[in-house]
Amino acid sequence: MKAEIIAVGTELLLGQIVNSNAQYLSQELASLGIDVYFQTVVGDNMNRLCEATRLASSRADLMIFTGGIGPTQDDITKQALATVLGRSLHIDRMAMDNLDRFFKDRALPMTENNRRQALAIDGGTPLPNETGLAVGNALSEDGKYYIVLPGPPSEMKPMFQNQAKPWILGHVLTNEAPIYSKMLKFAGIGESLLETKLMDLIENQSDPTIAPYAKESEVTIRISTKAESDSEAQEKLNTMEQEITARLSDHLYASEDVPIEKVIIDMMTEQGLTLGIAESCTGGMLMETITSIPGSATVFIGGIVCYSNAMKEKLLNVPRDLLEGDDAPGAVSAETARVLAEQVRMVVDTDFGLSITGVAGPGYSERKPVGLVYIAISRRGGDTLVMELNLKGNRDTIRIRSAKTVLYHLWKQLKENEVRN
Amino acid sequence: MKAEIIAVGTELLLGQIVNSNAQYLSQELASLGIDVYFQTVVGDNMNRLCEATRLASSRADLMIFTGGIGPTQDDITKQALATVLGRSLHIDRMAMDNLDRFFKDRALPMTENNRRQALAIDGGTPLPNETGLAVGNALSEDGKYYIVLPGPPSEMKPMFQNQAKPWILGHVLTNEAPIYSKMLKFAGIGESLLETKLMDLIENQSDPTIAPYAKESEVTIRISTKAESDSEAQEKLNTMEQEITARLSDHLYASEDVPIEKVIIDMMTEQGLTLGIAESCTGGMLMETITSIPGSATVFIGGIVCYSNAMKEKLLNVPRDLLEGDDAPGAVSAETARVLAEQVRMVVDTDFGLSITGVAGPGYSERKPVGLVYIAISRRGGDTLVMELNLKGNRDTIRIRSAKTVLYHLWKQLKENEVRN
Repeated sequence: MKAEIIAVGTELLLGQIVNSNAQYLSQELASLGIDVYFQTVVGDNMNRLCEATRLASSRADLMIFTGGIGPTQDDITKQALATVLGRSLHIDRMAMDNLDRFFKDRALPMTENNRRQALAIDGGTPLPNETGLAVGNALSEDGKYYIVLPGPPSEMKPMFQNQAKPWILGHVLTNEAPIYSKMLKFAGIGESLLETKLMDLIENQSDPTIAPYAKESEVTIRISTKAESDSEAQEKLNTMEQEITARLSDHLYASEDVPIEKVIIDMMTEQGLTLGIAESCTGGMLMETITSIPGSATVFIGGIVCYSNAMKEKLLNVPRDLLEGDDAPGAVSAETARVLAEQVRMVVDTDFGLSITGVAGPGYSERKPVGLVYIAISRRGGDTLVMELNLKGNRDTIRIRSAKTVLYHLWKQLKENEVRN
Repeated sequence: MKAEIIAVGTELLLGQIVNSNAQYLSQELASLGIDVYFQTVVGDNMNRLCEATRLASSRADLMIFTGGIGPTQDDITKQALATVLGRSLHIDRMAMDNLDRFFKDRALPMTENNRRQALAIDGGTPLPNETGLAVGNALSEDGKYYIVLPGPPSEMKPMFQNQAKPWILGHVLTNEAPIYSKMLKFAGIGESLLETKLMDLIENQSDPTIAPYAKESEVTIRISTKAESDSEAQEKLNTMEQEITARLSDHLYASEDVPIEKVIIDMMTEQGLTLGIAESCTGGMLMETITSIPGSATVFIGGIVCYSNAMKEKLLNVPRDLLEGDDAPGAVSAETARVLAEQVRMVVDTDFGLSITGVAGPGYSERKPVGLVYIAISRRGGDTLVMELNLKGNRDTIRIRSAKTVLYHLWKQLKENEVRN
């Protein structure tokens, strides 16, 4: 089974956005055991889009389009595919109802161009859009399969997971031995060190296969195998997982593709623990990360972004002589990180208090170098952990790595807690 | 002049990395006035790479390859291009000296496969690699141009800037008029409404051209023109910009590609204003967005994430009878949003206080629907603006749109301020 991903949009060809959809879909197809031989990007141009569609149909079995199904004149993906297949388009009733409801709810007039978003190709399966207005499409012809998805990742991903993937499993992959895979997620370790620890497994891999990859301070390993039965697959996957766990138990935080903040919220909910947070250089990023998880409200009670020294003093009782004066440790110091974590735990009245204070750059602060960050974890009735980090990268990277490092050490403490109880 | 970008690497097709090189090169080519009609990604496979090369040569004038020029057996980009052009490869003397020096300096033995990195195509111009070991290549044949660059962005970018771009200007673009463009950024308006307001301009466009696109509650328009001189270009661009501004001045927040939070920080710095923020459902996202801008520390003083009712009461003095009780408006209400904004302004002692409280979902809260969000803007000595939003989408989308909507209304107030003063 060979697939080709066709991302449609002149904004991609102008470099205004990066083609993250191709990456996402490639990962998903790999996990289904489908080979991607080409990714193509083409602009909002009827001739070239038809040309790309014909070419892909000649060299692949499954074509996945993203983008070009919005309301504007240059959104022409469904029109181009219909042209190539010699089919017509119609208004999908459910998508049109969805559009009508959307504008009615907002008491807005629906402009005529919005109707384009309800278009579907005759003889295909409309794919409902849970997070937007443009309907997707799935269809087959002459043993070839075509799936049309929206461009915005916030619409494309749910439509792929909940509509397109089940369609692929039900219509496309009916005769293949299914591929089974398991994701292992690691924190607090870099990709190259992790690879070194698993080098012999990676070099000698055949079945299951092992594929490590890294993003934003997290490393993922995907273990995959083809098997005739679920039990056979699970046995092969579990054996490999145990081998890897034995070497990396301090870093393996999940055996499924979830972020570490999800695992933390689950553990804290389970253990009945609560959390307060004080942030300086990360400016709210750690709290935003925690609260991105549904259900975080039972664990995370609140927190303070104390961007200025005055706020550190006023809201979190950091003594002024810690912050200011020639011999003072300053806002970016182990001492201040400790007070912030302990005070926010008391002010918000929680079991754990976390803090981050550092120099995210650009530009020095308190004559301290960019990338110098202190983090602290205070726990009710326990010692406060304070750590100095020396991070590399730009403002974004330093902020993300600071937040992820706190999360890693909080996870470690919760895990030790779990073992003790 | 038409170009095609061919990124080579199986890691791209597996989704292990995102194709940021294509974005970078597309931006660079757009700024040179070169149209990119296709981006292609192909794996480390000789047949398919030759096929992609032949296809690109048939539909474009300039082919830019990235990746596949490293030391390993699967690095075959130069070999494939040489095959397609019927040329041979040789060892480039300077690149080989560079390799020898590299290993000698480190007192390491150079393995044989490293010699591959010094290969160059006969008759081409070698492009030195300032930050790595693999030499690039530029050549022309039958009026077509070929450039081969490394895959790692840290090597590709300097080689493009310092070697490939001068080669393109000297060999490829000798007779073309340069392209000039301007980005206009809009907030508080959807893509389709914006397009409706500009429909006649878009439908009748010829020179300058107008291209709108949307991402995360912001809409961008790029106006582009080819011109013989800078002054001619500026005149054409400005005329079009004025036409667009006249229709959309309430939404046009910048004439360059910057996020609205950057414009807000600049305006507030200029006007000597400060900002405090209280967030509930967005959990720190608004503060994280504001503090992503370098220099935000002079404007943003601090803020509070009051995720629980207890914290709204304790840290921001929201009266309990507003929050709890059968007839109370509740945490998600216009009343609470107002108190949060006014109180955070007083607690943090700033000129502006912003607040967001709502239901980001999944799951109802206070029997209120997902997507119901209240925002408020309090200003020293002025009235407090309170607005009800009814947003669609998942948790992420609702949080992002809430934050972006507050920013839009803050920008509007700052603009009115500017006009008044």
